[in-house]
Amino acid sequence: MTTSQSIDSFHRGRFHVVQPLGHGHRSGMDAMLLASLVADERPIRVVDLGAGAGAAGMAVASRLDNATVTLVERSPTMADFARQSLALPENARFASRVAVIEADVAWKGRERAAAGLTDDSFDHVIMNPPFNDASDRRTPDPLKAEAHAMNEGLFETWLRTAGAIMRPGGQLSLIARPESIAEIIAACGRRFGGLEITPLHPRPGENAVRILVTAIKQSRARLVFRAPLIMHEDDAHRFTSYVDDLNNGRAAYARKTVSARR
Amino acid sequence: MTTSQSIDSFHRGRFHVVQPLGHGHRSGMDAMLLASLVADERPIRVVDLGAGAGAAGMAVASRLDNATVTLVERSPTMADFARQSLALPENARFASRVAVIEADVAWKGRERAAAGLTDDSFDHVIMNPPFNDASDRRTPDPLKAEAHAMNEGLFETWLRTAGAIMRPGGQLSLIARPESIAEIIAACGRRFGGLEITPLHPRPGENAVRILVTAIKQSRARLVFRAPLIMHEDDAHRFTSYVDDLNNGRAAYARKTVSARR
Repeated sequence: MTTSQSIDSFHRGRFHVVQPLGHGHRSGMDAMLLASLVADERPIRVVDLGAGAGAAGMAVASRLDNATVTLVERSPTMADFARQSLALPENARFASRVAVIEADVAWKGRERAAAGLTDDSFDHVIMNPPFNDASDRRTPDPLKAEAHAMNEGLFETWLRTAGAIMRPGGQLSLIARPESIAEIIAACGRRFGGLEITPLHPRPGENAVRILVTAIKQSRARLVFRAPLIMHEDDAHRFTSYVDDLNNGRAAYARKTVSARR
Repeated sequence: MTTSQSIDSFHRGRFHVVQPLGHGHRSGMDAMLLASLVADERPIRVVDLGAGAGAAGMAVASRLDNATVTLVERSPTMADFARQSLALPENARFASRVAVIEADVAWKGRERAAAGLTDDSFDHVIMNPPFNDASDRRTPDPLKAEAHAMNEGLFETWLRTAGAIMRPGGQLSLIARPESIAEIIAACGRRFGGLEITPLHPRPGENAVRILVTAIKQSRARLVFRAPLIMHEDDAHRFTSYVDDLNNGRAAYARKTVSARR
C-alpha cells in the first residue's frame, strides 16, 4: 500500500512527526494536550496506548528528559510512521528513549506480556482512544476507519489493559469526547479513582469539545470537575496563552491531587 | 416531635419558606439554582420530587405565572412545613398553583398513580436528591438523616419515577454533587437524552461543587458540557451578577437545545 505522508512540526519545531497525508488519523492538538497531562519530572516509564503515529508519546519524551516512552500501535502502517519519525535527525534528542511495539491494546495475559507490556510496570498510561461519528462513518478510508472504529466497550477494554500494566498509584491520562464520560467513569470502576475531569471549550460560553481526564490506579478519592480550559477568547483566533503553552510543551497540566509517591 | 423553625426569605423577599431550624435539610442556593432550570413561560405542570420544605418548587411557581407545581415529599414533617409556607400571606400570589403530595418517590405503578402521580402527565420534573458524606453521617439528626440518606441506586429509582410521570419531550432538571455524574448518566439510560451538564464553581480555577443537569425524555441527542457557572470572582464575596440573578429568580437558565414542542 502506498500512503503519502507529511512531516509535521510540533512544540514550535522541537520535534517532528511523520504522518499519513489525506489518509488515517492525523494527530494535532488533542495529542499535545494529552501529553501535557504527564507532569512528572522523575524517571518514569510512560506508555501511549493506541499511539497512532506517536505524536502524544513523543511530546512527552520531548518535554520530559527523564521519561522513557513505549508507543503501542496495532496498525503496522501507523507503527511504521512512528519508526520513521524516530529516525529523523530532528528527533535524535529523545529517540533513544522511545520504543515502538506493534500490539493490540485488547490483548490480555501472556500475549500482552510477551509483547513487552508487563503487569505493574508503567508509571503513566496515556491514551487518545479512537472515536467516530456520523461524518467519520461516511469516509471510505480504511486507515482512518481502523483508527476511528466504533467499538462498543472500547474504554472497558483499554482501561482493563491500562490498569493491568500500570503500577499501583500510577496515573492514567486520556482525552476524549464529552459524550464518552459515562463510559469512561464506568470503565474506571474500581481500577482507578481520584478522577479529575477538565472540560475543554473552544470559547467562553460554548459547549466543551473535549474532556481531559486523569485518574490514579487504586485510588478511592472522589471524582472532581476542574475549572475548564478555554481555547480562545471571545473574538480571538489565537489560543489563550495557557492553552498555547500546553499545546507547545512549555507547560504541563498537573493534577490538583498528586499521585502517590513510589 | 417538636421542631423549631424559621421563615426564610427567597428571591429578595418575593416568597418565604418555613423550614426546620437546626434540624433537617435546609434549602438555599441549591434549590434556587434548580428552580432556575425551568425556563418555560407556557402553562406547564411541574413536579418537585423529594421537595423537602418545597423551596425549589415554590421558586418555580413564584417566577413562572403559568406554572402549576406539585411538591412530592415522603416526610410528613417536611410536607407540613411546605403546607405552612403555602398558608403564609406572603405566598398568596402563587399558593393556589402549588399542591403538596405525601408520597415516596420510590413508589411504583398503581400506588404512585393513586397518590396523584399519573404517567405521562408532567412537563417538567425537578429534583435535588438527598446526598450525604462522611460529615453528614456523623450528624445524629434523624430528619436530616432521612433527607440525606445514602441510597444505593437512588438516581435509578428517582429517574425511573421521573421518566414514568413525565410527558415524552418533557424536561428533567436536577442539581447534584459532581461525583454523582456517572450514576446520573447511567440512570438516564434510554429514558432521557440530550443531557446538558453545567458545572458550578465557587471561584475561577476551583473545582466544581455542584453540577446542574437537564435532560429530555426520549431524546437521543448527545450529552454536552456547557460553559461553567462561576459563583464569585477571584476576590469578591458577592455573587457574580448572573448567578445572583439565577439565585433571585430574575433570570432562568434555559437549555441550549429547547425541548420538543408539545
